[in-house]
Amino acid sequence: MGDFYSISDPIRFEGRDSDNPLAFRFYDPDATVLGKRMEDHLRFAVCWWHTLCWPGTDPFGGPTFLRDWFEGEPMACARRKADVAFETFRLLGVPFYTFHDRDVAPEGATLAESNANLAAMGDYLAEKMEGSGVGLLWGTANLFSNRRYMAGAATNPDPEVFSYAGAQVKAAMELTHRLGGANYVLWGGREGYDTLLNTDMGRELDQLGRFLTMVVEHKKKIGFPGTILIEPKPQEPTKHQYDSDVAAIHGFLRRYDLIGEVKINIEQNHAILAGKSFEHEIALAGALGIFGSLDLNRGDYQSGWDTDQFAMNVPELALAMHAVLEAGGFTTGGLNFDAKLRRQSLDPDDILHAHLGSMDACARALLIAAEMIEAGALTGPRAARYAGWDGAEGRAILSGARSLDDLSARVLAEGIEPQPVSGRQEALEGVVNRFLR
Amino acid sequence: MGDFYSISDPIRFEGRDSDNPLAFRFYDPDATVLGKRMEDHLRFAVCWWHTLCWPGTDPFGGPTFLRDWFEGEPMACARRKADVAFETFRLLGVPFYTFHDRDVAPEGATLAESNANLAAMGDYLAEKMEGSGVGLLWGTANLFSNRRYMAGAATNPDPEVFSYAGAQVKAAMELTHRLGGANYVLWGGREGYDTLLNTDMGRELDQLGRFLTMVVEHKKKIGFPGTILIEPKPQEPTKHQYDSDVAAIHGFLRRYDLIGEVKINIEQNHAILAGKSFEHEIALAGALGIFGSLDLNRGDYQSGWDTDQFAMNVPELALAMHAVLEAGGFTTGGLNFDAKLRRQSLDPDDILHAHLGSMDACARALLIAAEMIEAGALTGPRAARYAGWDGAEGRAILSGARSLDDLSARVLAEGIEPQPVSGRQEALEGVVNRFLR
Amino acid sequence: MGDFYSISDPIRFEGRDSDNPLAFRFYDPDATVLGKRMEDHLRFAVCWWHTLCWPGTDPFGGPTFLRDWFEGEPMACARRKADVAFETFRLLGVPFYTFHDRDVAPEGATLAESNANLAAMGDYLAEKMEGSGVGLLWGTANLFSNRRYMAGAATNPDPEVFSYAGAQVKAAMELTHRLGGANYVLWGGREGYDTLLNTDMGRELDQLGRFLTMVVEHKKKIGFPGTILIEPKPQEPTKHQYDSDVAAIHGFLRRYDLIGEVKINIEQNHAILAGKSFEHEIALAGALGIFGSLDLNRGDYQSGWDTDQFAMNVPELALAMHAVLEAGGFTTGGLNFDAKLRRQSLDPDDILHAHLGSMDACARALLIAAEMIEAGALTGPRAARYAGWDGAEGRAILSGARSLDDLSARVLAEGIEPQPVSGRQEALEGVVNRFLR
Amino acid sequence: MGDFYSISDPIRFEGRDSDNPLAFRFYDPDATVLGKRMEDHLRFAVCWWHTLCWPGTDPFGGPTFLRDWFEGEPMACARRKADVAFETFRLLGVPFYTFHDRDVAPEGATLAESNANLAAMGDYLAEKMEGSGVGLLWGTANLFSNRRYMAGAATNPDPEVFSYAGAQVKAAMELTHRLGGANYVLWGGREGYDTLLNTDMGRELDQLGRFLTMVVEHKKKIGFPGTILIEPKPQEPTKHQYDSDVAAIHGFLRRYDLIGEVKINIEQNHAILAGKSFEHEIALAGALGIFGSLDLNRGDYQSGWDTDQFAMNVPELALAMHAVLEAGGFTTGGLNFDAKLRRQSLDPDDILHAHLGSMDACARALLIAAEMIEAGALTGPRAARYAGWDGAEGRAILSGARSLDDLSARVLAEGIEPQPVSGRQEALEGVVNRFLR
Repeated sequence: MGDFYSISDPIRFEGRDSDNPLAFRFYDPDATVLGKRMEDHLRFAVCWWHTLCWPGTDPFGGPTFLRDWFEGEPMACARRKADVAFETFRLLGVPFYTFHDRDVAPEGATLAESNANLAAMGDYLAEKMEGSGVGLLWGTANLFSNRRYMAGAATNPDPEVFSYAGAQVKAAMELTHRLGGANYVLWGGREGYDTLLNTDMGRELDQLGRFLTMVVEHKKKIGFPGTILIEPKPQEPTKHQYDSDVAAIHGFLRRYDLIGEVKINIEQNHAILAGKSFEHEIALAGALGIFGSLDLNRGDYQSGWDTDQFAMNVPELALAMHAVLEAGGFTTGGLNFDAKLRRQSLDPDDILHAHLGSMDACARALLIAAEMIEAGALTGPRAARYAGWDGAEGRAILSGARSLDDLSARVLAEGIEPQPVSGRQEALEGVVNRFLR
Repeated sequence: MGDFYSISDPIRFEGRDSDNPLAFRFYDPDATVLGKRMEDHLRFAVCWWHTLCWPGTDPFGGPTFLRDWFEGEPMACARRKADVAFETFRLLGVPFYTFHDRDVAPEGATLAESNANLAAMGDYLAEKMEGSGVGLLWGTANLFSNRRYMAGAATNPDPEVFSYAGAQVKAAMELTHRLGGANYVLWGGREGYDTLLNTDMGRELDQLGRFLTMVVEHKKKIGFPGTILIEPKPQEPTKHQYDSDVAAIHGFLRRYDLIGEVKINIEQNHAILAGKSFEHEIALAGALGIFGSLDLNRGDYQSGWDTDQFAMNVPELALAMHAVLEAGGFTTGGLNFDAKLRRQSLDPDDILHAHLGSMDACARALLIAAEMIEAGALTGPRAARYAGWDGAEGRAILSGARSLDDLSARVLAEGIEPQPVSGRQEALEGVVNRFLR
Repeated sequence: MGDFYSISDPIRFEGRDSDNPLAFRFYDPDATVLGKRMEDHLRFAVCWWHTLCWPGTDPFGGPTFLRDWFEGEPMACARRKADVAFETFRLLGVPFYTFHDRDVAPEGATLAESNANLAAMGDYLAEKMEGSGVGLLWGTANLFSNRRYMAGAATNPDPEVFSYAGAQVKAAMELTHRLGGANYVLWGGREGYDTLLNTDMGRELDQLGRFLTMVVEHKKKIGFPGTILIEPKPQEPTKHQYDSDVAAIHGFLRRYDLIGEVKINIEQNHAILAGKSFEHEIALAGALGIFGSLDLNRGDYQSGWDTDQFAMNVPELALAMHAVLEAGGFTTGGLNFDAKLRRQSLDPDDILHAHLGSMDACARALLIAAEMIEAGALTGPRAARYAGWDGAEGRAILSGARSLDDLSARVLAEGIEPQPVSGRQEALEGVVNRFLR
Repeated sequence: MGDFYSISDPIRFEGRDSDNPLAFRFYDPDATVLGKRMEDHLRFAVCWWHTLCWPGTDPFGGPTFLRDWFEGEPMACARRKADVAFETFRLLGVPFYTFHDRDVAPEGATLAESNANLAAMGDYLAEKMEGSGVGLLWGTANLFSNRRYMAGAATNPDPEVFSYAGAQVKAAMELTHRLGGANYVLWGGREGYDTLLNTDMGRELDQLGRFLTMVVEHKKKIGFPGTILIEPKPQEPTKHQYDSDVAAIHGFLRRYDLIGEVKINIEQNHAILAGKSFEHEIALAGALGIFGSLDLNRGDYQSGWDTDQFAMNVPELALAMHAVLEAGGFTTGGLNFDAKLRRQSLDPDDILHAHLGSMDACARALLIAAEMIEAGALTGPRAARYAGWDGAEGRAILSGARSLDDLSARVLAEGIEPQPVSGRQEALEGVVNRFLR
């Protein structure tokens, strides 16, 4: 193409000493890390909405980006947008992309019209994918922008809205299936409340449970082999969203008997809005067996909303990658850049700088994490710390062979007074820095 | 007594126009509210730790309170403290109190010695209670102050600490049972981590699950008829506590099959540290069937730690009381003042001012909430808002009789385009203010 | 009119027992409070932008409000919007309104065109005001929505943007003057930075100092008798805004020698985003002699962005009104409702419910604050607390007559060991609740 | 010594590939960076309070550290503590230390006794310093721990407390002077309020202004050549502290005519509690000409209190060091480790691991920052971004030669419509990562 970006050749790996601003210094798709290709570890995806649809608005300002597909005949614009999207994928060398139904095809005056638009664009995407080497990491339905969803989709007080949302998900799931998507995602941006004064939480939770169950049933019906994922976020735009964090979704999945059917797509910015660290959410999902995929971005710890910045802090990313590796790495999931340019970054090439900068930071983080895993830098001391639980008494306690009476009798009989042992946090932080490179 | 406070006659209800600073203006124990005595609705309790044990320290300052039981022979001090405690209950007219094991009796050099101290003080408390009309709302064990618990009690990497904690809980539960306690509470102040670098979350969750199960087993074994309660808090002193909020505990109880055995003790300050409103946590626990009791205080929304102030904001409390009434009110639970004086409030009478001020605010809030319930001020419009779900299609969806295909077919066939309806938040806020009095 | 709202008669004061949802229960413009009419104390203003221009969008959703002036020929729409605005003022009985230049008149293709639109709409507003009894509390220029201001107006790296902003302010100030505005406001929504990586803070502060000085010079040149006001906010949309809070602006005004020329317009939501309470910011501005006016709304303490809700919490407002009365009350300033409907409140009448609910809450707060002032409920104990400073030694210290050597010599000679005195916070909070009615 | 730590030889620089846990990999005191020794750039100091006095308590737990100087005859303990302190300085090779008066010498029953203790320990410290090569970065007085200061020191409602505080500062300043201190610091931990209900902010600000002026007068009187520094913090332990951040102190210094006399000691954790980034506070102090020194630690962005952790994040520190270099580097100031071990880090060697880990991170950050400065990596693009202000019109505007009328006339005449230019944030973040090593 060359009609949007300043370059037309794909960005290449040139090694850490390169000073070419449009080169990878760490991301080398074919490099082997822990016995797997780096590309297969990271499974990067570019998202449609922030990268191609968002015009640079914020709550106090209008558009700053002037893309040539923002104005004109809707379907022509959608095709032009797809062309630039695939050019972006090609230049960055990413193996995947992600979309909402309304990102790739314009909403029509009726659902029938919207479905027709989506189907037509589905054909176009299928054609673009062919031979491109680019796959679909996941698709999803936008159930939050249109005013009909202002009071929720599945959790709306009006069952007609629930039905409309269900119809929209059906179409989005089927397109995802058709395009070979590895996962299907639900983010319940309006599935919560603005005020408890008008809200019946018990009803709404049951509605949401039923909706998710229908999605799982439909997946089976159509034979979609991918994973159903839920993406947690605690608030914004709502005052409170039911899918607030990994722990909340875990309880929800258990209550509606969906463990084993649904996994979690964790986003860094959403994690910190919930007061949790990114690595906490990954590790918890791993421990609970519901880790699925990642939305990679970074929130500003000092701003209370989704800033969705491109993640660049290497030591922070290294801890997240360590948690991913400990959770077994990605199977169907991947690293989706749910990140947006700052609205002042209005040059087309800023899209490339942002993605490649974050891809490189992730690759570097993966290398650090892999080395730490190989050296047992953290896992070794941790196993030693809990070694007592692998002893006879520890196993007896965990297996249910001890009662409070047993414990008390033994402590009193033996005069047990446990002595605390250093947690060595600072020494371990120093260890992590030794792997930073 | 009269040797601690400036008054010796109990504080009395004098009506809203009284200008006696040591009188109730709204709290009238025998007044009937929604068919029940006000005292039986509110079930106030004074806590031992903040009110009698805490010396006014903060992270930057030493003690400011100089109580005559802070220095001297430990058991004599413990009895003197109990005397002032019961004088406090008598003056305030509260029906309940709460304690940690180490609040009422000093820790000894060994567990055996600690147990002996606890037993002796148990005798003393039983004697004080007799004829006082004061009951025990709940007891609990302090598993967080001693350095042995610095890395957790149930979740400690050392099983000896788990055992010690179990032994301590056994003694505290049995004393609670002996004193006729209505509940037994667990707050896992150290059941979390300071850094993920040295933490195995999967192991620790299993340890915690086993510990809680042992507590339930012991309750049954000794025939304790009260309720087992968990108190959520997201962090502080830990970086992350596993029992972070109602939703997290819900998942935990389901995972370890403890639904029906354990309920939740919700604290306002802990709720807001978790990013949730107090009424949210109450309403959610109600919806999930795990609402138990309340720790009443107020956090400073602009300070990021437990300020544990006495709750005084009447409109806020009215929404909390509305949620309590909607959750069915208290059964074994109650309103425990887990609130501490500001450290500058060093006069003994400040204890009375603080409690009576908050008791009055709660009583006023109860009256407002009860009037709103009677008038259907919020419940009426809410039922109307969800009326669609009581229709045929709504019921069919919820019962599982509809699939995504069904929904889609109907929306397309009927050309459904749902129209949004005003949420009326500001009008409802105005309604609440109309009940403020 | 009656073509927008459901009522056509102005909302009336009916007393606290009225159950008419569209009546004032506390706001009685002609009631006398501390020797002044209630209307003259409160000086309410309705703002153009939230009430008439904002379509209900949020970062995740499109418009929810469908006003008939949102689409059509721009100047006709502007006139229709003004008609509904004045109908709103009439129904609510507010004495003032406020606007940004671009709220009342559409931006043109060039500055000349924008100025012409503004002048034409100025004629229309002047006409509408005549005989309406409604005045202009303040005008301002929108220097943040257009993409030209994305990197700041006065603090832009490009002096051409500074010039454009200056030209725009000139026109807005002159229209404000012509319409008899009591104040002119500057809110520097983009006067800060998104990242320090590309920012020269020293330069930008000097640019801002120069800009504000030019505004003061222009005010004198055109003989505008009103007050120049700055509105603080710490961040959003920027990462950091230079006018972050009252204390920061105080230093800024001193550095650029503008004390005496500029006062502060304090907003509740902006105050809490800065980590300060609303009453703190009012009291500090009062103590520093730079208190000007208020933007009344309420932020959600648990959401990290401007929620701009209508203020309804009476006890909180009572403390704010107490601070206003202590700062001497309003002179040219007033209470501007910089508050927006929740986006689900899409009925026209929701505008009325929201404003009247908050007006009533403010009136009630004023009555409470005035009674506290009259009774010396807080001011009395406070004066007693500091009485020592009115003694000889206290005055000597403050007047500069004592050195550290003097203090040390006296403490050592007299063996002074000061004894702490109760701060009585809880008792004082109880006092405030006694005035709540 | 060897009776406290496991090692007796000083920690040495061994280069980045060393795997000795007790070696520096980046901190090489004699290495030349931008023409200056690394040690002279960083000017590290160890603090007495966290490292030697704090016993590992937190608001929910008692001591975890068992140091042999925590119990015994107070002056003997103070000497033992000093011995371990100097052993720590020797092993770490730090050139400076810092203290509060009450850290180094116990408080007596009267001020006279306290002064005598302080003088005696002053002799002991002077002796220890001799030949050690260790200097005093700054001293300060603890005006916050004793209950007499619970309502403030300079801002206390009781002038006797002000006097006592003044006497204490006199002694601390004079000892600092005697020991050759490079600075004297004031941190007003109680100079604020717990509740506005009992506070007269105007009075308190004047008291604080007078106090600081007396300190400056005393400095001149005794000929102390060091710098007077104020350390900002917004809250904790108070609800609000007057010296909340750099901008607030700037206004305060201007109001009380102390610009030029007093500079600022910025702490990372205090900065983020104020909602500002560390580098923001450094850059702002630099721009205002009041940058003095740094208290180095790191706060947890997700915890709302002073966690005072050891700073370890290299990319974050690199931006802080860049700001320090741009502010001209340290003159009398330095990098004081106002950081405490996690309370689980109870081994003596944890003190070494923590300090050396953070010293290494700072050294690495300095190297990165220096390379960026040398390459003009950030300063180059920034100068280009503002180039317009160095042109004729830019200079005319800033010099006061233009009015709003001038600006408007020019914009209209020339039809100026400024075009926004990319802010390039992501590209610049990528540049920073290129320097990370």
